Amino acid sequence: MTITYSLEVSNARLCGFTNLLLRWKGSIYKYLWREVILFLICYYSLSVLYRYLLAQAEKRVFEEISVYCAAFTDLIPLSFVLAFYVSQVVARWWAQYEAIPWPDRTALMIASFVHGADERSRMIRRTLGRYLILMQVITFQAVSTAIKKRFPTEDHLLEAGLMTEEERKQYDKLKNQLGTKWWLPAQWFSALTLRAQKERRIKDSIQMQALLNEMLTFRGLCGTMLSYDWISLPLAYTQVVTIATYTYFVAQLMGRQYLDPDMGYTGYVIDLYVPVFTLLQFFFYVGWLKVAEELINPYGEDDDDFELNWTLERNIQIVFLIVDHLHSQHPRLKRDIFWE
Amino acid sequence: MTITYSLEVSNARLCGFTNLLLRWKGSIYKYLWREVILFLICYYSLSVLYRYLLAQAEKRVFEEISVYCAAFTDLIPLSFVLAFYVSQVVARWWAQYEAIPWPDRTALMIASFVHGADERSRMIRRTLGRYLILMQVITFQAVSTAIKKRFPTEDHLLEAGLMTEEERKQYDKLKNQLGTKWWLPAQWFSALTLRAQKERRIKDSIQMQALLNEMLTFRGLCGTMLSYDWISLPLAYTQVVTIATYTYFVAQLMGRQYLDPDMGYTGYVIDLYVPVFTLLQFFFYVGWLKVAEELINPYGEDDDDFELNWTLERNIQIVFLIVDHLHSQHPRLKRDIFWE
Amino acid sequence: MTITYSLEVSNARLCGFTNLLLRWKGSIYKYLWREVILFLICYYSLSVLYRYLLAQAEKRVFEEISVYCAAFTDLIPLSFVLAFYVSQVVARWWAQYEAIPWPDRTALMIASFVHGADERSRMIRRTLGRYLILMQVITFQAVSTAIKKRFPTEDHLLEAGLMTEEERKQYDKLKNQLGTKWWLPAQWFSALTLRAQKERRIKDSIQMQALLNEMLTFRGLCGTMLSYDWISLPLAYTQVVTIATYTYFVAQLMGRQYLDPDMGYTGYVIDLYVPVFTLLQFFFYVGWLKVAEELINPYGEDDDDFELNWTLERNIQIVFLIVDHLHSQHPRLKRDIFWE
Amino acid sequence: MTITYSLEVSNARLCGFTNLLLRWKGSIYKYLWREVILFLICYYSLSVLYRYLLAQAEKRVFEEISVYCAAFTDLIPLSFVLAFYVSQVVARWWAQYEAIPWPDRTALMIASFVHGADERSRMIRRTLGRYLILMQVITFQAVSTAIKKRFPTEDHLLEAGLMTEEERKQYDKLKNQLGTKWWLPAQWFSALTLRAQKERRIKDSIQMQALLNEMLTFRGLCGTMLSYDWISLPLAYTQVVTIATYTYFVAQLMGRQYLDPDMGYTGYVIDLYVPVFTLLQFFFYVGWLKVAEELINPYGEDDDDFELNWTLERNIQIVFLIVDHLHSQHPRLKRDIFWE
Amino acid sequence: MTITYSLEVSNARLCGFTNLLLRWKGSIYKYLWREVILFLICYYSLSVLYRYLLAQAEKRVFEEISVYCAAFTDLIPLSFVLAFYVSQVVARWWAQYEAIPWPDRTALMIASFVHGADERSRMIRRTLGRYLILMQVITFQAVSTAIKKRFPTEDHLLEAGLMTEEERKQYDKLKNQLGTKWWLPAQWFSALTLRAQKERRIKDSIQMQALLNEMLTFRGLCGTMLSYDWISLPLAYTQVVTIATYTYFVAQLMGRQYLDPDMGYTGYVIDLYVPVFTLLQFFFYVGWLKVAEELINPYGEDDDDFELNWTLERNIQIVFLIVDHLHSQHPRLKRDIFWE
Repeated sequence: MTITYSLEVSNARLCGFTNLLLRWKGSIYKYLWREVILFLICYYSLSVLYRYLLAQAEKRVFEEISVYCAAFTDLIPLSFVLAFYVSQVVARWWAQYEAIPWPDRTALMIASFVHGADERSRMIRRTLGRYLILMQVITFQAVSTAIKKRFPTEDHLLEAGLMTEEERKQYDKLKNQLGTKWWLPAQWFSALTLRAQKERRIKDSIQMQALLNEMLTFRGLCGTMLSYDWISLPLAYTQVVTIATYTYFVAQLMGRQYLDPDMGYTGYVIDLYVPVFTLLQFFFYVGWLKVAEELINPYGEDDDDFELNWTLERNIQIVFLIVDHLHSQHPRLKRDIFWE
Repeated sequence: MTITYSLEVSNARLCGFTNLLLRWKGSIYKYLWREVILFLICYYSLSVLYRYLLAQAEKRVFEEISVYCAAFTDLIPLSFVLAFYVSQVVARWWAQYEAIPWPDRTALMIASFVHGADERSRMIRRTLGRYLILMQVITFQAVSTAIKKRFPTEDHLLEAGLMTEEERKQYDKLKNQLGTKWWLPAQWFSALTLRAQKERRIKDSIQMQALLNEMLTFRGLCGTMLSYDWISLPLAYTQVVTIATYTYFVAQLMGRQYLDPDMGYTGYVIDLYVPVFTLLQFFFYVGWLKVAEELINPYGEDDDDFELNWTLERNIQIVFLIVDHLHSQHPRLKRDIFWE
Repeated sequence: MTITYSLEVSNARLCGFTNLLLRWKGSIYKYLWREVILFLICYYSLSVLYRYLLAQAEKRVFEEISVYCAAFTDLIPLSFVLAFYVSQVVARWWAQYEAIPWPDRTALMIASFVHGADERSRMIRRTLGRYLILMQVITFQAVSTAIKKRFPTEDHLLEAGLMTEEERKQYDKLKNQLGTKWWLPAQWFSALTLRAQKERRIKDSIQMQALLNEMLTFRGLCGTMLSYDWISLPLAYTQVVTIATYTYFVAQLMGRQYLDPDMGYTGYVIDLYVPVFTLLQFFFYVGWLKVAEELINPYGEDDDDFELNWTLERNIQIVFLIVDHLHSQHPRLKRDIFWE
Repeated sequence: MTITYSLEVSNARLCGFTNLLLRWKGSIYKYLWREVILFLICYYSLSVLYRYLLAQAEKRVFEEISVYCAAFTDLIPLSFVLAFYVSQVVARWWAQYEAIPWPDRTALMIASFVHGADERSRMIRRTLGRYLILMQVITFQAVSTAIKKRFPTEDHLLEAGLMTEEERKQYDKLKNQLGTKWWLPAQWFSALTLRAQKERRIKDSIQMQALLNEMLTFRGLCGTMLSYDWISLPLAYTQVVTIATYTYFVAQLMGRQYLDPDMGYTGYVIDLYVPVFTLLQFFFYVGWLKVAEELINPYGEDDDDFELNWTLERNIQIVFLIVDHLHSQHPRLKRDIFWE
Repeated sequence: MTITYSLEVSNARLCGFTNLLLRWKGSIYKYLWREVILFLICYYSLSVLYRYLLAQAEKRVFEEISVYCAAFTDLIPLSFVLAFYVSQVVARWWAQYEAIPWPDRTALMIASFVHGADERSRMIRRTLGRYLILMQVITFQAVSTAIKKRFPTEDHLLEAGLMTEEERKQYDKLKNQLGTKWWLPAQWFSALTLRAQKERRIKDSIQMQALLNEMLTFRGLCGTMLSYDWISLPLAYTQVVTIATYTYFVAQLMGRQYLDPDMGYTGYVIDLYVPVFTLLQFFFYVGWLKVAEELINPYGEDDDDFELNWTLERNIQIVFLIVDHLHSQHPRLKRDIFWE
């Protein structure tokens, strides 16, 4: 579900972002609490080991390792790699939002350019509209686990009324030849407009071409969605960033232990029991990485992923409204109140 | 209200940006003075506590915590995360400005392509123009608190003359089926152009298609505005940045206290009473964050938010001027003074 | 005036950018020399104060403040905020260049699509062309101080032959209703093409629509220019960057003073009299900020601002050449030398 | 082969990226293991040299060099140059993906605009479709080693049925005049549409122009692919980045040696035998560079390169399906289940 | 000459970029060797001065200056300003490549839309094509020293057959009025299409408008090339970056001298004679700046500049092939081997 908070930040005021900190849904706490607990368990295990279980000689080794680990924190510029990586992920994330096709434009074109009030004309308009939805739902199936759960097979599309029996058959007949058939509704769409033009329901090439072009743009966005799903950010890049972050905090587990102040290591003055700042640092860096993790596939079911289910629902309703129910209906013309 | 200062910086001169520092409206001071006061109150409370209220032993604990906190400031690369976050917010902010639809293009198309000087032709042109405004105002209602205040319900649109009674009814009739109906005026627009074409007021498919296309572009921008409102920058990202900044300065509250120089802590030499540089640093970092806060929803009522109210007003006037009052009027042709 | 140096750097050679360092016009020296002198005056005043005027006890205080200030330089990541801010300003600067509309395309369309060799056809073509210029000059008036100086009022447009008496009247008549009327020539343009089409000088809807569309693109760029002028980078952002830079160097004024080496402060070894590196640092950071200052409004009269005056001049000449003098003229066809 | 992992990261969960760390194919381990081994061999050779082979005096020299090298690590901001370089490479990489032309749009246009059910019409449609594929395969030959291996010469295109004998001849005839002839199929395409229009199979200029325009867009993408292949990121830039990274680790080889702790060099406390953190650092920086290396030519045969072979295969099938087998076929119209 | 190395890096392998390090042409060594030698001469001069020529007291001064200079290296964040500056230059560089107009699209449009097999039709087609080339070559003359050398005057264009005598005259006649006349061939082009349409060689407005539009896009790219040449990155920005880099290494010349270890300055342990790391650092930073210098005007004659000469040659051949020699020629239609 998309988390919208624009209303709450529409005006800058005292500590304006503070109220955002108290949310749970889609929050960084929700994404991160498991990691934090895991980190704390490891941290305290090591702490208990050092304080109560180790012999003096072993403690000295522990301390040496700890100091060595503490030095490591400067070796990897975590902030650099995270900042650039998250930037790229955020850019992709928005591009992925913009790739979601909305059928409104094409539906309005269908309504405007496929003429006729008889049943067959209505049927053509409705079918053209339905093909848009069908193309979209097949695309969504491929990229989104949520939609895949809702429509696991073509049977479910049939049931939902998005496909007819015969369409199903033609769709299946093609199956043995090619893996991905999301483009088939586009083919049907263009064949059907061709038919409609022959029957003089589409009047001329201008209208035909405009309609076709609009559908092809819609089709192109479906293709873009599939591309983003197919071509992830290179695995090696994600691995480098992840390993850098994780090893950093594995080193921190040792390096930030409270050491016996009698040994005189610099910077080990007070024993806080709770490693507040280490925890905040963990929260910050791993939280930053979590943002990337949350955004890297926004077609999933995270709190903040795009609501493709709602989108689909909305599009089905809008398309049928525009191409059929509201077709060529508009309020009666009247002089407006500014008329002179 | 938009803060324009381009005139004042049109020429680079001695300390050219200095004159910008003396402004109040839309300034960083105005956004930040409350936070600064809050910070100072906390700072002096701790200072008073340390200097006058604590016992010697407690002072030593205070000092240890203070030194510990002071060390924290290096742990979080605040500048990195703020720089990238603010960059992304600024990019979104400008994209949101560019998403504001201006009806001029479509209005000129209406004036050019819907022919006829009779009342019905005028009525069609005015109504088409009004639908653009209506689509815009419904969009603005959804994204902007300022417009929502001005037109809280459809009744206010009716009163303002942007909707007729019958339009209101049709709009309401649809209500029980779907949440968002901002696209309905687009449907009316296309149905009305269809009617106009049938009545030969729009002459051919070229003109029809150009007009429709222009309106769809306008509609698309409304959709983009709604998208920016619906899909905020991920909550978790904003939280990570905010928490990083806030905890940084909570640590500073302790870490920058003036400690007894007799204790020999490094870097605690002079007692300034006013922590000038800590304050400047606070001003800088929190100010940077405030810039993000101000820009993250530019459709609000901040000093520097886009003036949607003015925009709406202007568009209403321009649209009626272009589609009706000035329709097919142009100054009489004359030889210009360069004529040879 | 635009500073072009691409020729001098077309080939990379020994110290290739060195020759650029010797220029004055548009150079960083020219922008910065006043600030440098101001900085030096303050620096030496403090130096004199410390060396000759203060008592020993006061000197100690001075030294403490100096050391305290020197520590401040690490607190604000000036390079971060400047790098990102200047990046954004440079991106806007180029976008602002690209927003300058050139009438060539539209003029060629006018020449191609408004047919007829009689005087009235010529007059229509010339007037359409003139409206482009008029729209441009009104836009330039609003955004550019240089153009505003040249054409302070509509009277000057009239005198320059860019407006006729009647146009002036119609333009003024509208004045009492709306503030900005730069779009009015676009309205006249479209009304005049409508007239031309009725008179069969524009042959069909294709040509009509292509011409209109081209003009609307031109109009859109004018709108973009006005937008960039209207919506500056948020004031608060500019303030944060400016204050950060200025306070940094106010702190440097104290922090980089030469202190008595007998007092044993680290890093105060040689007395250079001229604080070479402090000056270079000042030059670098304030120079970086100056680049932003120079670019933030490129429609002004800085050495490096876009030459809107020249642009206007050139456009007037080109438009009349294309739409009238050279209309439908082309060299006689001949076999070229490659003909076989 | 493209490495897709979007499904595995569709939901953020505990250590969500962890499961990506266990992959081999396309992983950073696979790219990097040779470099790591090489680095370790060098490291241990030096270590053995120091510990067992050098005399005491030589050891002192070794130590001095080591300390000197260790200091070098701060001199080059490797993270900066890598972060920006990799950013640019990633941006190019995605642009290169977007440059891959898909013939679907053009094929659907061919099916819609080249009319007629007779054999000659079918032949024209098939040939037009084939020319798209041919243009693509010649482009792929030039940029991709994988495709070059599959189709080393024009003979192989002939064999695969992508060229006819006569086309081959015409293609070869042109050979002696120009190097690159990838645009020739575009010329044939346009000549053939001209023919089809003369034979009234393409009905009017609208359709003709739409078809031509679509093909030209396809052709433009082929040109873009060739451009990315022709114009690499400047060699000097890549060299600067590579040399910086390599010299950094050559310095590390010496600088991170375990030195005799008796000599009292700071930071040489424990003898880990395995230089864990140096290795991690190597892994991180060289891994980052490897990401660039993997992405800089994504038309190759790396694990993560774009699968041009599959793309070609798919396109051949789709094109013939759309322009011929499925031509003007669509499921019989039926009332959908929402019909009222 | 463009340096292409994509083939060599198509697959990531052991030290994949290593083989790029051994190239000379277009390499960073070739750009940088003069600067390196200059730097070394200065370095050793100072070194000799210090070691052999100065008295003891002078040595102490030298050492103090050296230590002072060494401290300077931290004052200017060279990496920041270089990283951002080079990023901007690289972005511009690619935009400049994309601005190079290729006439293929327009040529194919000419071939498709200017009908007729008679000599006059051929002549029109050839002349239209030639005008594209002419517009391009005049643009190239203005921006590229290489093309300027090849065609210093219009006489050379005449000789090369790109202009006819009469065109030359008309071109010259205009000279006294305006400086830049690169747009004139565009005017001729549009006038000639107008003529062709009147003679019914271009059949309708669709074709006319498509052709005109294509040419205008070509013209627009020429304009963009001129813009990039005219509007350089602001001089002040380039100066700031250059001065920062140069002063940094002037300071290094002193600061990295080998000082007498007996004096006990920290970090001056071994006397390497060759300042390896200083040299590497010089190589790195100045190399980075050199990349910018090489890319800032890519229309020059650097090893890595775009080959405008080749481009022109190629375009001349292609244009005449498409608009004339191959006009309406395509291989005879045949059933392809997949025919069923």
